[in-house]
Amino acid sequence: MKRPTILVLGAGYGGLSTVVNLQKLVGTDEADIILVNKNDYHYESTWLHEASAGTLRPDQVRYDIQGVINKSKVQFVKATVEGIDVNTKKVATSAGEYTYDYLVIGLGFEGETFGITGLDKYALSIANVNAARQIRDHIEYQFATWSTEENRDDARLTIVVGGAGFSGIEFLGELGNRIPELCEEYDVPKEKVRVVCVEAAPMVLPGFDPELVEYAVRQLEAKGIEFSIGTPVVEATPEGVKIKKGEEEFEFIKAGTVVWAAGVRGNRLIETSGIENMRARVKVEKDMRAPGFPDVFIVGDCALMINEETNRPYPPTAQIAMQQAVTVAKNIVALMKGENTKEFVPELKGTVCSLGEHDAIGDVMGRKLTGTKASIMKKVIDNRALFMIGGVPLVLKKGKFKL
Amino acid sequence: MKRPTILVLGAGYGGLSTVVNLQKLVGTDEADIILVNKNDYHYESTWLHEASAGTLRPDQVRYDIQGVINKSKVQFVKATVEGIDVNTKKVATSAGEYTYDYLVIGLGFEGETFGITGLDKYALSIANVNAARQIRDHIEYQFATWSTEENRDDARLTIVVGGAGFSGIEFLGELGNRIPELCEEYDVPKEKVRVVCVEAAPMVLPGFDPELVEYAVRQLEAKGIEFSIGTPVVEATPEGVKIKKGEEEFEFIKAGTVVWAAGVRGNRLIETSGIENMRARVKVEKDMRAPGFPDVFIVGDCALMINEETNRPYPPTAQIAMQQAVTVAKNIVALMKGENTKEFVPELKGTVCSLGEHDAIGDVMGRKLTGTKASIMKKVIDNRALFMIGGVPLVLKKGKFKL
Repeated sequence: MKRPTILVLGAGYGGLSTVVNLQKLVGTDEADIILVNKNDYHYESTWLHEASAGTLRPDQVRYDIQGVINKSKVQFVKATVEGIDVNTKKVATSAGEYTYDYLVIGLGFEGETFGITGLDKYALSIANVNAARQIRDHIEYQFATWSTEENRDDARLTIVVGGAGFSGIEFLGELGNRIPELCEEYDVPKEKVRVVCVEAAPMVLPGFDPELVEYAVRQLEAKGIEFSIGTPVVEATPEGVKIKKGEEEFEFIKAGTVVWAAGVRGNRLIETSGIENMRARVKVEKDMRAPGFPDVFIVGDCALMINEETNRPYPPTAQIAMQQAVTVAKNIVALMKGENTKEFVPELKGTVCSLGEHDAIGDVMGRKLTGTKASIMKKVIDNRALFMIGGVPLVLKKGKFKL
Repeated sequence: MKRPTILVLGAGYGGLSTVVNLQKLVGTDEADIILVNKNDYHYESTWLHEASAGTLRPDQVRYDIQGVINKSKVQFVKATVEGIDVNTKKVATSAGEYTYDYLVIGLGFEGETFGITGLDKYALSIANVNAARQIRDHIEYQFATWSTEENRDDARLTIVVGGAGFSGIEFLGELGNRIPELCEEYDVPKEKVRVVCVEAAPMVLPGFDPELVEYAVRQLEAKGIEFSIGTPVVEATPEGVKIKKGEEEFEFIKAGTVVWAAGVRGNRLIETSGIENMRARVKVEKDMRAPGFPDVFIVGDCALMINEETNRPYPPTAQIAMQQAVTVAKNIVALMKGENTKEFVPELKGTVCSLGEHDAIGDVMGRKLTGTKASIMKKVIDNRALFMIGGVPLVLKKGKFKL
């Protein structure tokens, strides 16, 4: 009997956790596990706001995949996935075509610009570790250029952040800490720098406790960050963004840097895979399989699951992706043995939103936290993600311990 | 009797050394010494190639002026000099007008682009500490952008350095060390990076011993640096530079970064000061005074002195500027006392050209040095410049000790 091939696409929280769980459950001769990923490293997508602001170096937010996989059980292929066809069971990659008995799609999120003119071209996006590094370097380059200009253009020092959701707020928190350092480093008077958060929705951090949100806004405003809420961006240009302030009222914010942190969607490859989807996200079965394709699992940001209590989708978090991965790995093993799959039951431990290195807000097991306590909890969560994939050695290597 | 005012313009090697020497020779009540400088720091203009390549941080190549002057004797004014008129004895600055009994002009060099089209606009210049920082950030931003591009433009990773003189070669030496670090940091394959030195003259490092020059070129080529010698840049565009390879033969080098390190001239303010000059440099009298203006001294890069042995001007080095400053300070004191001024006699201790942190070539007291020995000698020279202005404390604070 031929060993089944388990093909895992993507080494984000979902995909890599699936592999790490599979290699514990599957014996060396029981299956061929193939992991395909664009880079030879995994990056902490929940830490990218820090790399983007420059408060963590890019190498601090990533680690080698080879270091956490069992090479006797898993074959790692560094390649870009170019197409998925679940009807013919073929996956095209830059390293050739692969077929599978079981497929796990963990290809992560993409930014969603909602068709707003110019955003694709003139806004930077916290999409991956390279993009984060580019944002950091872009901001630094603007500061450096300002310092050399004869006729100084202060708008170079304006940073517009589009979106007051989770990523927007976490990025603003880091900027709040980084700007004084940048001013020192580049001889820029702090009052020349402007950081503006622009949000279309009438509120900051929808879904979070209002009291915690108020704390977050107050703390960020104290660091000089301005908020423009209920004012959608209608256009981005090389010079900045145009926002809508009223029925017929618009304002142009001239800015050297525009970072778009509003809205994510699933990976575009899902749309041409043959699987039913909404904005590249798949409403998965309770056992994490794609509807109609019993050999295809979706994990992480591309999976859409409705929380029946709130009737809203679960947020695309690392916590849920890693929990899903455990279920996916177990269910694949169950299918291999001809057993029944199990339902995925998320265990929501809470959410902490960072406001920079020493501050955060959190709703953890029903307790509202702010400040240092929340910040410590955030580091515990970040270290836990490392632990679940790479155990103690990875925590020691890449963990966050500065309190 | 009114105390004379000694006005010193510029806190580079020449100006700041003049002040430091003056404050030793002049009693508190004997003169008003005013030092005017654009920034509140002095920077080591001979270390800018390191800040430009990113091998030293900008704050490592500069120090506070207040830390080395005696405030009971010297008044420091942070202001930009806007005009000098030696006929009316007036100096206009951004902090108001000053007059003087003795004037010392130590305003340093400016880059010379020889009227080549586009260089002013599209090439970066190692002109000062802010410009150096911009070069570093520009290169890093190109690397970061390349990493995020879907259709990667490898020309982003090409750096053209115009000029194979002292600054060009020292900058190339640092780049040779920095490029592998950048490749590691930005996930760029080393073979994608191109560093090309373009020089109009038919030789590298004119004036240096040919054997040492050969060593330098060999070492830099081993680090992957290409040389295009005898090929003038005829135009710079946003895309790169056009060079002349033969009578009617041209080549366009597409490059994300162009750094112009060929040719310096004196500060433009000299040209409207009323003093006779050539490209803003003043052929000074033997006692360092401007011809026809017995109360005006010129020190450093704006002073032109002919070496009678070689019949060529002395190079604009820190070494000579600081030696001139000693003579200028003594001569001002002599004039105050009604004594005769003394002739400036340069003491040429030799020249060391760095090829990156651990390599250099040097001609020191008649001995040819290469490699580690020359590199150590370079650090000794760099530390000596600190010592002469700020003594042991400054050497301990900013000195180079890593061997």
